[in-house]
Amino acid sequence: MRSDNLSGVSEKVMQAIINENNGLALAYSEDDVTAASQENLRALFENKDLVSYNLVTGTATNTLILATLCPTFGAIFCHEKSHIYADECGGVEFQTGGAKLHPISGKDGKMIPSAIEDAIGHYIIDEPHHSQPAIISIANSTEAGTIYSPDEVAAISEVAKKHNLKLHMDGARFANAVVANGCSPADLTWKAGVDALSFGTTKNGTLGAETAIFFNASDDKGFVYRRMRSGHLVSKSRYVSAQINAYIDDNHWLDNAKHANDMADKLKGAILNSSAIDLLYPMQTNILFVKMIPALNKALEESGAVYYSWGVDDLVGARFVTAFNTPETDIERMIEVIGNF
Amino acid sequence: MRSDNLSGVSEKVMQAIINENNGLALAYSEDDVTAASQENLRALFENKDLVSYNLVTGTATNTLILATLCPTFGAIFCHEKSHIYADECGGVEFQTGGAKLHPISGKDGKMIPSAIEDAIGHYIIDEPHHSQPAIISIANSTEAGTIYSPDEVAAISEVAKKHNLKLHMDGARFANAVVANGCSPADLTWKAGVDALSFGTTKNGTLGAETAIFFNASDDKGFVYRRMRSGHLVSKSRYVSAQINAYIDDNHWLDNAKHANDMADKLKGAILNSSAIDLLYPMQTNILFVKMIPALNKALEESGAVYYSWGVDDLVGARFVTAFNTPETDIERMIEVIGNF
Amino acid sequence: MRSDNLSGVSEKVMQAIINENNGLALAYSEDDVTAASQENLRALFENKDLVSYNLVTGTATNTLILATLCPTFGAIFCHEKSHIYADECGGVEFQTGGAKLHPISGKDGKMIPSAIEDAIGHYIIDEPHHSQPAIISIANSTEAGTIYSPDEVAAISEVAKKHNLKLHMDGARFANAVVANGCSPADLTWKAGVDALSFGTTKNGTLGAETAIFFNASDDKGFVYRRMRSGHLVSKSRYVSAQINAYIDDNHWLDNAKHANDMADKLKGAILNSSAIDLLYPMQTNILFVKMIPALNKALEESGAVYYSWGVDDLVGARFVTAFNTPETDIERMIEVIGNF
Amino acid sequence: MRSDNLSGVSEKVMQAIINENNGLALAYSEDDVTAASQENLRALFENKDLVSYNLVTGTATNTLILATLCPTFGAIFCHEKSHIYADECGGVEFQTGGAKLHPISGKDGKMIPSAIEDAIGHYIIDEPHHSQPAIISIANSTEAGTIYSPDEVAAISEVAKKHNLKLHMDGARFANAVVANGCSPADLTWKAGVDALSFGTTKNGTLGAETAIFFNASDDKGFVYRRMRSGHLVSKSRYVSAQINAYIDDNHWLDNAKHANDMADKLKGAILNSSAIDLLYPMQTNILFVKMIPALNKALEESGAVYYSWGVDDLVGARFVTAFNTPETDIERMIEVIGNF
Repeated sequence: MRSDNLSGVSEKVMQAIINENNGLALAYSEDDVTAASQENLRALFENKDLVSYNLVTGTATNTLILATLCPTFGAIFCHEKSHIYADECGGVEFQTGGAKLHPISGKDGKMIPSAIEDAIGHYIIDEPHHSQPAIISIANSTEAGTIYSPDEVAAISEVAKKHNLKLHMDGARFANAVVANGCSPADLTWKAGVDALSFGTTKNGTLGAETAIFFNASDDKGFVYRRMRSGHLVSKSRYVSAQINAYIDDNHWLDNAKHANDMADKLKGAILNSSAIDLLYPMQTNILFVKMIPALNKALEESGAVYYSWGVDDLVGARFVTAFNTPETDIERMIEVIGNF
Repeated sequence: MRSDNLSGVSEKVMQAIINENNGLALAYSEDDVTAASQENLRALFENKDLVSYNLVTGTATNTLILATLCPTFGAIFCHEKSHIYADECGGVEFQTGGAKLHPISGKDGKMIPSAIEDAIGHYIIDEPHHSQPAIISIANSTEAGTIYSPDEVAAISEVAKKHNLKLHMDGARFANAVVANGCSPADLTWKAGVDALSFGTTKNGTLGAETAIFFNASDDKGFVYRRMRSGHLVSKSRYVSAQINAYIDDNHWLDNAKHANDMADKLKGAILNSSAIDLLYPMQTNILFVKMIPALNKALEESGAVYYSWGVDDLVGARFVTAFNTPETDIERMIEVIGNF
Repeated sequence: MRSDNLSGVSEKVMQAIINENNGLALAYSEDDVTAASQENLRALFENKDLVSYNLVTGTATNTLILATLCPTFGAIFCHEKSHIYADECGGVEFQTGGAKLHPISGKDGKMIPSAIEDAIGHYIIDEPHHSQPAIISIANSTEAGTIYSPDEVAAISEVAKKHNLKLHMDGARFANAVVANGCSPADLTWKAGVDALSFGTTKNGTLGAETAIFFNASDDKGFVYRRMRSGHLVSKSRYVSAQINAYIDDNHWLDNAKHANDMADKLKGAILNSSAIDLLYPMQTNILFVKMIPALNKALEESGAVYYSWGVDDLVGARFVTAFNTPETDIERMIEVIGNF
Repeated sequence: MRSDNLSGVSEKVMQAIINENNGLALAYSEDDVTAASQENLRALFENKDLVSYNLVTGTATNTLILATLCPTFGAIFCHEKSHIYADECGGVEFQTGGAKLHPISGKDGKMIPSAIEDAIGHYIIDEPHHSQPAIISIANSTEAGTIYSPDEVAAISEVAKKHNLKLHMDGARFANAVVANGCSPADLTWKAGVDALSFGTTKNGTLGAETAIFFNASDDKGFVYRRMRSGHLVSKSRYVSAQINAYIDDNHWLDNAKHANDMADKLKGAILNSSAIDLLYPMQTNILFVKMIPALNKALEESGAVYYSWGVDDLVGARFVTAFNTPETDIERMIEVIGNF
């Protein structure tokens, strides 16, 4: 589909919202459901010190975390195709009051440690003419559908530590990355040196619930004021927190992500077998970037498949995204169409 | 209760959310449900030109409207007890990038035109040392539980027009004001000179849905970019817009507000009859500010009533708020307690 | 005259600028002259720990100090007629990225401790809806031409300490306040609890030189980056610092201020003796606010006197300002005109 | 030398400052000297419509122009080594309230039109997730010591016009570019499609005077308020404007730049003749980037030459800058040292 944003809400999460609708509850995150969500996340991440703040959008989560961790005159290093650099309309620059996003190129939507080192090297510490390096931000899974392994995260964390920077992970599709890595949430984050995580759930089955997680409690200084003044303190917070609780209960989030990844993998098999269509990146999660002959593109569109596409010389580029509730029959129909070429 | 924020979601609105959960829909406000909500609001406000943007919080709505209408070096005139001045943690200053909020005092939570004139008079037009007057912002109903009538709004609009300012209305409790005024939504807004309205619904029965309404289409320039970069473009927008649609359908919003106002009015009757408790402001909607003898406060608390309170010399000040779903029995119990003094 | 800004540069300061024009020097405040200015200020203020940054304008100095000391979600308490509130076009809101300026009224341009206490009382600590109290800012001398004594400053400092706030002094006319108080610079600042001072010199004989002084070295964190990114790191800094050095050398600054104060005092004598003109505030430095009969205003203008004036009912309000180089004959001419009424 | 910032003030400009010190003058740019500077610039640039604002630093000039021309959610395209991107500590991001600087690589410190086209192509117009393209900013002469010709500027202007962007020129070393091009100031700016110019003079003989020039009068909307609130409205403005007037009088500025360029050219000749040192860029103005053998670097340093240097593998990289008052004997001494290798 065009994006996993188009999917609806899983039955389990919707039921949790409905169940919440019983009488009064304190507003503004002072309710018991919100308190419980932090406890649940502490258990999930095997970390008693983490603090969490539930929000409604991924951009809110990314920008508020970064504004909390980064001085207003700081520099943040990220991939040139990352959401925070390319798709948040200057949200980080705005929310931080002027921090600089330094874009770094890299294969398959990923940055390698030496490229980050090079970028940091452009900035002289204690030189007022230069924004001061403060944060490395990586997305996992990436916007290209690839993943960082725990070891790769740890290697980037080494760079961060060496230069006294914080490491942020944009986890808009964190569940897909965990499933693809086959590791624990802790392994992929704080145990690998991540300081803060945007824990996304909306693309994977909730209505609208994203959590800012700081793995070191003292790192969240001022977060609650930044959240309020930017309009992100939801009054009926229990309905957001209830989504988080249902999402992580009983591995619901991993089941959802596994389905999405599996559907993408099935489609990938057909692509690799066809000479009419090719992968642009080594797909590892639920996003496939491809290029294909125009005739195939036409046939797919006529079959009802919906996706972003653009011209690539004589070919057509496209992004296919699967979700927690993508019907297997949809994938099979696409495979059938591809098989005809 | 402490606030109408503590109330849950009305059955009708919750059902609309559930009904929405059927298959895919475009994200980011490009869905049909969002388009329908604008049409519904145009009908409700009898104004074919209005443009509307659905958001999740009142602070987001107020600050994004004001940032869109106000130059970054502008001045905004508002009541000193207004939400935008006193309860948004500097949200307007932040979202506008430095505009000045000029607080104005006034009886019963309201500003009178001459006081606004006086305040504007402090600023010299075209004088670079002075923030430039840009907006008057009023709340209707007010934070004190009082209302502006259409005529009073029109009188303030005259001041705005005279000085070439825009007039904004914070309608976090707009439904309560419409019911109390017994007028049409149009009468209380654009027909009285209001340029933009924060159309609040969350306190009156929805889960989280607030709409920024510009009555003159050209006034919304840049709104969509400010919304995105501040993290307020919800991906699964249809679930927010469905709430708006259910809320205004079949007078649901007015029925809700009428119940809240009626409950407050019933309580007011008992207060006026008692010598142990007095109104601080002439209650007109669903908020009662009172002062009472400590013994009554104690008795109310023991009876299970929940509200904000604070010391006022030897007396106790308190704010009682009713909501769309306040049980009449709760009010009757309070009245009974008051009757004992 | 209209303002002490209209005066030129004292001979001594101009000579220092000329003397500086000999060969190369490091730029961007890394030169020896700038280093010397900090040493000179440490001696003048009897404080070895102070750190100082030379700038060109008073608004730059005020806003950069406040942005350094105040969190972006903080509240700053100041007089409603203060320069930072009324005459910097929202500079503090801009430079801090959204802090709130809370205006406080008070007689003769001054705030009394209890009024500040009351204002702080509006803000609940640790409540995200409220900007968090961070700074009290006073001007000395004030915009009304009055002064705070060391004891009055200390009393305000007590309020600051009690609430864990910083105390800033806008010293655009600091020299006039020191002369009027007959105290030492240290007595009027850090010994009375002032944490940071905008040490103004431009209105008192320099070309353009203002110094941000932090009396506690650790308070200046991040200042150098904020100065640079806001465009206030002057390249040929030695010419600014040379002004500061000449200004404080051999009591030049106090001599200048004494002349200005004396000229104002002389004029004040004539005003007190006349029934055609009255003081609006108890003039203590070099600014006289008066109201007078229109005929006198007309006569003064015809005599060549230049000042700001405005209508006050049937009378004319006016602000007379004297400077370091106001000719005594100018004052005598004004006295003569007043004597005719 | 390390930078042309280290040079002092030319005799002619210093005399103009001294001459200005005669009596009172209106402050805050309302003085006659400032009015005259705009007239002088209109004559110099053969453009009766231009509006000009005198400031003290280059960063102030760049950032205020860009904040005036660029919406707060806009994107600005510039070279990755440009001063606004790499050396203003996030000044543009701060002053605009969150605009995005998009860095573009390019040979010899210059951008070619197709590279700018490519960069603009990353942004979808009317797509709220993307910052909206607003400005192309080029430096002339560049930070690499190279120049854009009028034709090259016009070619970039074509790109700007095609995409409805404004074209800004950072002219911190504008005089050097004019001399090197042998063209008129008009030819290199508005006649080639430049909308706004940072007209730098400080590096070329003034004490501290930079002018923001808008070639289309209506483009300066709001500039005066942004200047004031950011602390850049100098009170004794006549002393700044007097520098501008002396600077452009009688070709003083071109004479100064010619000397600097000539000195660099003389040095360049020696470099081209030596096998121990090489140019990194094709020097065209007053900045030479070189790499040389370590022994030569050592010899130059021992001879008293002062410059920035850094390691380049086994060689030493260095930046030599000449100024309006660089003694020819200094250059001859360097040439002699180079000749020894």
